[in-house]
Amino acid sequence: MNTPMLQGLSLMGYGLAERGAVSFQARNPATGAVLPPHFYRASEADVNHAVVLAEAAAPQYAALGGVVHGAFLRCIAEQLEALADELAMVVPQETGLPEARVRGELARTTGQLRLFASVAEEASWVDARLDSAQPERLPQPRPALRSHLQAIGPVGVFAASNFPLAFSVAGGDTASALAAGCPVVVKAHPAHPATSELVGWAVVAAAQVLDLPEGVFSLLFDDGITVGQALVRHPALRAVGFTGSLRAGRALMDLAAARPVPIPVYAEMGSVNPVVALPRALTHCAELIADGLAASVALGNGQFCTRPGLLLAVDGEGYVRLRARLLGKLALIPIAPMLTARNAAAFHDDIATMAKQAGVVQLLGATYGEYQSGPVVLEIDAQNLLNQPALAREVFGPSILLVRCASALEMLTILRRLDGQLTATLHAEPEELADWPGLTALLASKAGRVLFGGVPTGVEVCPAMVHGGPYPATADSRSTSVGTAAIQRFARPVCYQNWPEALLPPALQLANPLSIWRLVDGQRQR
Amino acid sequence: MNTPMLQGLSLMGYGLAERGAVSFQARNPATGAVLPPHFYRASEADVNHAVVLAEAAAPQYAALGGVVHGAFLRCIAEQLEALADELAMVVPQETGLPEARVRGELARTTGQLRLFASVAEEASWVDARLDSAQPERLPQPRPALRSHLQAIGPVGVFAASNFPLAFSVAGGDTASALAAGCPVVVKAHPAHPATSELVGWAVVAAAQVLDLPEGVFSLLFDDGITVGQALVRHPALRAVGFTGSLRAGRALMDLAAARPVPIPVYAEMGSVNPVVALPRALTHCAELIADGLAASVALGNGQFCTRPGLLLAVDGEGYVRLRARLLGKLALIPIAPMLTARNAAAFHDDIATMAKQAGVVQLLGATYGEYQSGPVVLEIDAQNLLNQPALAREVFGPSILLVRCASALEMLTILRRLDGQLTATLHAEPEELADWPGLTALLASKAGRVLFGGVPTGVEVCPAMVHGGPYPATADSRSTSVGTAAIQRFARPVCYQNWPEALLPPALQLANPLSIWRLVDGQRQR
Repeated sequence: MNTPMLQGLSLMGYGLAERGAVSFQARNPATGAVLPPHFYRASEADVNHAVVLAEAAAPQYAALGGVVHGAFLRCIAEQLEALADELAMVVPQETGLPEARVRGELARTTGQLRLFASVAEEASWVDARLDSAQPERLPQPRPALRSHLQAIGPVGVFAASNFPLAFSVAGGDTASALAAGCPVVVKAHPAHPATSELVGWAVVAAAQVLDLPEGVFSLLFDDGITVGQALVRHPALRAVGFTGSLRAGRALMDLAAARPVPIPVYAEMGSVNPVVALPRALTHCAELIADGLAASVALGNGQFCTRPGLLLAVDGEGYVRLRARLLGKLALIPIAPMLTARNAAAFHDDIATMAKQAGVVQLLGATYGEYQSGPVVLEIDAQNLLNQPALAREVFGPSILLVRCASALEMLTILRRLDGQLTATLHAEPEELADWPGLTALLASKAGRVLFGGVPTGVEVCPAMVHGGPYPATADSRSTSVGTAAIQRFARPVCYQNWPEALLPPALQLANPLSIWRLVDGQRQR
Repeated sequence: MNTPMLQGLSLMGYGLAERGAVSFQARNPATGAVLPPHFYRASEADVNHAVVLAEAAAPQYAALGGVVHGAFLRCIAEQLEALADELAMVVPQETGLPEARVRGELARTTGQLRLFASVAEEASWVDARLDSAQPERLPQPRPALRSHLQAIGPVGVFAASNFPLAFSVAGGDTASALAAGCPVVVKAHPAHPATSELVGWAVVAAAQVLDLPEGVFSLLFDDGITVGQALVRHPALRAVGFTGSLRAGRALMDLAAARPVPIPVYAEMGSVNPVVALPRALTHCAELIADGLAASVALGNGQFCTRPGLLLAVDGEGYVRLRARLLGKLALIPIAPMLTARNAAAFHDDIATMAKQAGVVQLLGATYGEYQSGPVVLEIDAQNLLNQPALAREVFGPSILLVRCASALEMLTILRRLDGQLTATLHAEPEELADWPGLTALLASKAGRVLFGGVPTGVEVCPAMVHGGPYPATADSRSTSVGTAAIQRFARPVCYQNWPEALLPPALQLANPLSIWRLVDGQRQR
């Protein structure tokens, strides 16, 4: 692909937005340097234009079918790979992330695109169901009924700051929506606009290679909230994907719920990801658990939504060993830039506030200037946490709060009162679980993913992954934003009654031309 | 079952609510007679007590598994069958429905309970996914990941007036929630409280037969909105099922969205159910189409959410024949009681208002007193409808608005601007569809179920049924409230990472002790 020079303009279908009145620039968080070029905020008219294009493209794009949707995603992956060297240069400038991480995240992104391509091509995800007619049935004949999932229509995607490729312009939300047959309008994250524009061009190029209807993809720039608000309010938008803070995610949820026609919001809003260490596991493995936790807390300078932010343990010799080892390990981690000055400032403020609360002791860490941060360890006893439940909420950065419980009962009480979580991790010897009846069910009632051992960071992209969980971890606990099931967010079932065979969608034709798994008169078959 | 005398008190788990300060009585819509006994409005404390019981029962009930959930539903069906003669007496008194309809609806209700029982027992609905560990994978080993759908927790169900059995206390919402493993708190419809109490006792008796945890079911009475509001606001409630009006459904949606922790609302709020008749079908089958429409409009005195309320056709000889035949058929339908005085008054007001709008001509029908109504036919031309889109909304009663279009373009324009619908029906000769490109996709984009010929009333209970559709037909177009897929509304996915085999839920154990269909390393197998 011949990458166009960066324009700083929103990509409107196959065209460009006009240069608007307001512009912004990214900054290099490692140096503080302002980066060229200027990016121009999209206007309300631009938002409208992008969604109207998407609405017009929607039926035609959906009707192209899974094979074309898959080819589109594969082509995006190729276009991105062709940009690898350029991205390896641009992404670190905008994010402070090291080149190796960027290349790794690019591989994750293209792998994700190809996984969704294979889901679209294989096509069984549409959950086709065929019930035969029973013309002789009494008192009423039964009609022929066939249903499957169809694309929901234009989807608005809000890119995240912490995965500039994998949860951004061509990340999981975009890939799963395009795989489902939905046009996508992305609101770029203002912290990495050049990255966004490069990736945006890759998507546009792939759409052009496949001669897809204009409007199947658009990309809007804004460093404020007006574009996002206009996008969510647009009457032709049908669903929203979002990864970011609880505050911003809830604002979008409220906006979507207040529309004349409410639409679903799939907001992944982070989590404190509790880690529970039971006594025998601590006795036998305190150091091993501590080593894993230290690496997981510090990974990506703590800017992962699955970073373990809360450790619960019953006080005792094992806990004391874990704490000592964790402090020793984290003390060795050098300070490093965070993704943005805003992230750094928010993290420093949050830690300073937490450290002042009753019973909180700061064991490690301080503040480190405008962009940088290093690991922070805080400690509290269970009673003080129970009195101040807000302390068990997410802080975005490399911190962990150790909760010293006097008893199993205290620990269970805290767990019962926790908010919804993306993950919950249990360190236990299998035998000691008999002493903790209901603990597994309790953890599963709180989180989308429960781990036995290990650390919650590292979210596999595969069929069984659930990157979701009860509010406030996500807006909609019935969904996942990572893994193949993410495609189901952007579809709804449609039933065809007594429809002529030749006029049915291929997934519902009796001959099963797509060779997909279907439920035929209640029996699963292919 | 020995039915207890009717108490008029809310059923709180295995107990009864106190007698409150406010009571109400049902009325026989055929005679206007006030019916005994008094029913006492539940208090806020009762609502809290019911939901707290449900919350306590939730993990234990969920853990009992699909075989027990299925046995519970089957036992409810048996208890209801034992009440058949009593229901055949009580339901007509409260609803004016004939005994034959009540016995038919009871069979539908018990059939539905047994269908959900078989879904729970078969258990493949949990969408189990197993991805093997890859300990050697580079750069990171892959953990073992296994996910399935788990019960979401206590569900609030709002009963409908128009199906006093099938969409009421032990109707589809209750059956699917109990099948998914969720406790249910029902808010009874005030129009048929004795029916509700009888059915409620049947559910309680079944729960006692199976020795289920108290709180798996409760039933609350109220003739106002305070109980429903308190139920939806209760922090331990996890989802809402509702069938009723758009106004009431939207109020519950707004209430649920404004909670500190928003919860999903599955509200089925009705629909105008457009019927499109293309020219050649009209030429060949105007009378056949008219006969079907007349029967469908008049069925149940028009009080079905799938009643066809809008007919679209291009003006011409075929349309004139259809209109004449429809008027002739509907003129023969005798007036009959509606379900409630409120329904009758609302219907009469709605028709009177519609008849006054520009271009509307009333061809049949007038108002008929406090409880009764008969068929109403209105006509308008397309331009006048386009100028007054509110006329294309649901009126609850036996009416139909005929829309005379001057051209195909006018008809398509109206269809494009229609709200979301439960159903859309197309009468066409298959050959003439070539002249209407995009029409099938347009109908499918508007509705949960599209019919080729026939009439939209008559909602099959089967795997392929979709009784859903875009807002305002329902709150959540991704779901159905009828058919086996309705169970998925009350579950969310949970992923177990590296969990010890013996501690996993049976659905996720490698040996597949439940013999369910699963996705194992991307392959569907049993």
